[in-house]
Amino acid sequence: MTVDPRFYAPLGALTLGQIAELTDATLDGDGAIPVFGIASAANAQEGDLVFLDGDGKATPSISPTARLFVTNEANLRHVPEGASKLVTRFPRFAHATAALAMFRTRHLDWASDERISSDANVHDGARISPGAVIGPGATIGEGTWIGPNASVGPGVQIGRNCQIGANVSIFCALLGDHVTLLSGARIGETGFGVMAAPDGQRDAPHFGRVILQDHVSIGANTCVDRGVFEDTILGERTKIDNLSQIAHNVVFGRSVVMAAFGGISGSVRVGDNAMLGGRVGIADHVRIGEGVSLAASSGVFRDIDGGETWGGTPAKPLRQWMREIAWLQKQANQKKNS
Amino acid sequence: MTVDPRFYAPLGALTLGQIAELTDATLDGDGAIPVFGIASAANAQEGDLVFLDGDGKATPSISPTARLFVTNEANLRHVPEGASKLVTRFPRFAHATAALAMFRTRHLDWASDERISSDANVHDGARISPGAVIGPGATIGEGTWIGPNASVGPGVQIGRNCQIGANVSIFCALLGDHVTLLSGARIGETGFGVMAAPDGQRDAPHFGRVILQDHVSIGANTCVDRGVFEDTILGERTKIDNLSQIAHNVVFGRSVVMAAFGGISGSVRVGDNAMLGGRVGIADHVRIGEGVSLAASSGVFRDIDGGETWGGTPAKPLRQWMREIAWLQKQANQKKNS
Amino acid sequence: MTVDPRFYAPLGALTLGQIAELTDATLDGDGAIPVFGIASAANAQEGDLVFLDGDGKATPSISPTARLFVTNEANLRHVPEGASKLVTRFPRFAHATAALAMFRTRHLDWASDERISSDANVHDGARISPGAVIGPGATIGEGTWIGPNASVGPGVQIGRNCQIGANVSIFCALLGDHVTLLSGARIGETGFGVMAAPDGQRDAPHFGRVILQDHVSIGANTCVDRGVFEDTILGERTKIDNLSQIAHNVVFGRSVVMAAFGGISGSVRVGDNAMLGGRVGIADHVRIGEGVSLAASSGVFRDIDGGETWGGTPAKPLRQWMREIAWLQKQANQKKNS
Repeated sequence: MTVDPRFYAPLGALTLGQIAELTDATLDGDGAIPVFGIASAANAQEGDLVFLDGDGKATPSISPTARLFVTNEANLRHVPEGASKLVTRFPRFAHATAALAMFRTRHLDWASDERISSDANVHDGARISPGAVIGPGATIGEGTWIGPNASVGPGVQIGRNCQIGANVSIFCALLGDHVTLLSGARIGETGFGVMAAPDGQRDAPHFGRVILQDHVSIGANTCVDRGVFEDTILGERTKIDNLSQIAHNVVFGRSVVMAAFGGISGSVRVGDNAMLGGRVGIADHVRIGEGVSLAASSGVFRDIDGGETWGGTPAKPLRQWMREIAWLQKQANQKKNS
Repeated sequence: MTVDPRFYAPLGALTLGQIAELTDATLDGDGAIPVFGIASAANAQEGDLVFLDGDGKATPSISPTARLFVTNEANLRHVPEGASKLVTRFPRFAHATAALAMFRTRHLDWASDERISSDANVHDGARISPGAVIGPGATIGEGTWIGPNASVGPGVQIGRNCQIGANVSIFCALLGDHVTLLSGARIGETGFGVMAAPDGQRDAPHFGRVILQDHVSIGANTCVDRGVFEDTILGERTKIDNLSQIAHNVVFGRSVVMAAFGGISGSVRVGDNAMLGGRVGIADHVRIGEGVSLAASSGVFRDIDGGETWGGTPAKPLRQWMREIAWLQKQANQKKNS
Repeated sequence: MTVDPRFYAPLGALTLGQIAELTDATLDGDGAIPVFGIASAANAQEGDLVFLDGDGKATPSISPTARLFVTNEANLRHVPEGASKLVTRFPRFAHATAALAMFRTRHLDWASDERISSDANVHDGARISPGAVIGPGATIGEGTWIGPNASVGPGVQIGRNCQIGANVSIFCALLGDHVTLLSGARIGETGFGVMAAPDGQRDAPHFGRVILQDHVSIGANTCVDRGVFEDTILGERTKIDNLSQIAHNVVFGRSVVMAAFGGISGSVRVGDNAMLGGRVGIADHVRIGEGVSLAASSGVFRDIDGGETWGGTPAKPLRQWMREIAWLQKQANQKKNS
């Protein structure tokens, strides 16, 4: 994954030695090696700095092209032979420190009186309501409506015939055609990530994007966070109701339907045509197969194969859940009568 | 129900024949018959086009004045004798296509640099904060405050002594006097409706309104969707907490109180003085009687008579729910000790 | 607690006699006594008017310096000897009526075309995005970014190096340094309080503030309500995810982490380093100790000692909850097989 320069301005490469100095880490390797990018260990390309953090017990997924590591002692054994290492007690934080020195999030510097940037590319056939704000480098396609007081961040790409509601905000995102965002939707905020720093916990910075494919529809006040290093992606015709939360790095397939108050944790995968009832929650990294149905209020903590129908918290096959509910009701009331 | 021209600009009547051509439907009737309006089958007036969709097993509610139908084969038997029919595999979609050709949602064309429209009717005794946007045809009453960056759509009527918070959006809505909307409330978005179209699922368009009666109070970031063809209505002095969701066509009586994260599905009815605890969910079309109390986190799937107190998911009378909880706790721990 | 004049403009003292007349209450005391402020009974200072409402069965917490009471008959026995009393059927409402005659909430009168008030104090090193609105008396510190279409109310104090997202609103609040508010966060709205008035239920007015200490981080579309008379406080480095609700008078310690859809009712206390999973709810006045962990979807109705891990609704120690789930699953399925 390459950091997208439309959203994150590259400030230039650093050497491993410079990063060691910046982060107080111990260098084990050639300090002159240049670092060109940042990535997760799993998806690193050549020249990317990655990190390994935690207790080191689980074997991390590491891209074969990852050669530049920030790690703690516990993860040293996972660093591939011959790779360069920066060793520190706070690898996630050191990596973030380097990342923030290499890439500047464009919208966090946005300061202007210019409501519609003269560096934006707004099609003549787009309709812009009063109070809407469009940042430099943004593109708005033909036939698209931007609602009042909506905020379209620097570099955001919006296709044709989209409806962007009132008071919506969009950052670090690419939208296809016929995308609908109802009012107050929040697209592209940083996800919820906490990292340990020498002075206490801090927010982990995010360098990914949100991709909303054609005909995606997002409810009012719903949030779709951008990825940490990769993208959060909603497939074609996927439809999300109001007041839902989709965390960083989530990938939904096509024509998924999710009712209100859905809560999808980081890195979840949901297959095509899945149907998620109201108030469904899914724990991080869980995979939901194609065509799965989840009853309202399900709390899902494990993978579900395609085509199944589950319910309850913790979720289980619907019939089993209903059997337990019925059995409990019967037993508890027998008890009373006897 | 007549489509309100303050929110939906009439584009002129079509004939049945024109609609057949527009939607690729098969006409069974006189192609010269004019269609003046659109409606649900249950509430159609003369000249309104209605649709019947689904598998046709249940008998739909049909107004005696409904004479113009879009239907699929499965529902042909429900069309009253002598009525005109357009037959298609996608009746909901064909009806929507006709509706969008007959009525244009005004705010989706709103394009202007004029922050407060010169065609709005703002009382001299109203207070308008910076950044607030008011559309053409909107009315703001005496003593009302419009917060910063609020968005008041075309034709919206707001009474006297209302408080409209910061970054609120309001479309297709009529507000009485002394109505309070806390910041970020979303009034009048389209509801969550999916319809089958030849190229896959699409959002169903909405042509109804939101009615908030006197002294209604809506929490921060709460959403009240407008009706599909009818209205979503909250009665006098009803009070909704933050981050709640009220779907299309819902009707609440007077002095209902609903705590945070309440989720009310489409077409639910809630009687006067009902008390809904935090995180209550109610499935669509359910009817809740007057003065009902629902414990926090209740998930309600069936009608509840007036005056009762329920809890749990699926919800049941509170005593029964508590009995089951107590019984389970006792049994499960005996099991361990024995 | 003194009402903060940066947010509530003092309109001058009233005498007890004037308040009696204003509220139709019966005066038992010297009508010439001046009332300088308003407070809760528990935290009143000299000269503050307080109220006692409800059925009077529980003994209220009353500050020894409270000498001016509005009360109903049922609470007369709790009024300290020698104190002055206004007696009425609607003490909460009468108190609110007096309060609103003594203090005017500044932002509810905000009417201006001036996007960034000339009476605001914006540091040269702050970055202000287009569409952002800043009220009179507000302060923005060095290095702080204010996102597009954000609304910063009159008198709001924002420290250095903060990030205030797009379309955020902030009223009646003091923010430290390095505070992050993601887009659509709602800081300082009135809390959810209903009071009985002669003509039916009404919203209780709020005169407190929100305090967000250094390094606090608030998710997108999350709401933090201001206190009724005291403050809602989030301690240093506390981190709240998207779409959460924190009610009036809540106090969180340091480095608390709360995942999405957290719902914290009024006056709850949460200790340092507590970890609250997604969709956790806590009933009002509950106290959660330091370092407590709450599983996702917990519904907490009682105090929890420091260091414990709880789950379920109603919440109980995690092991017990898991034992019950496992036992039910086993029994219900045995039943079926036998």
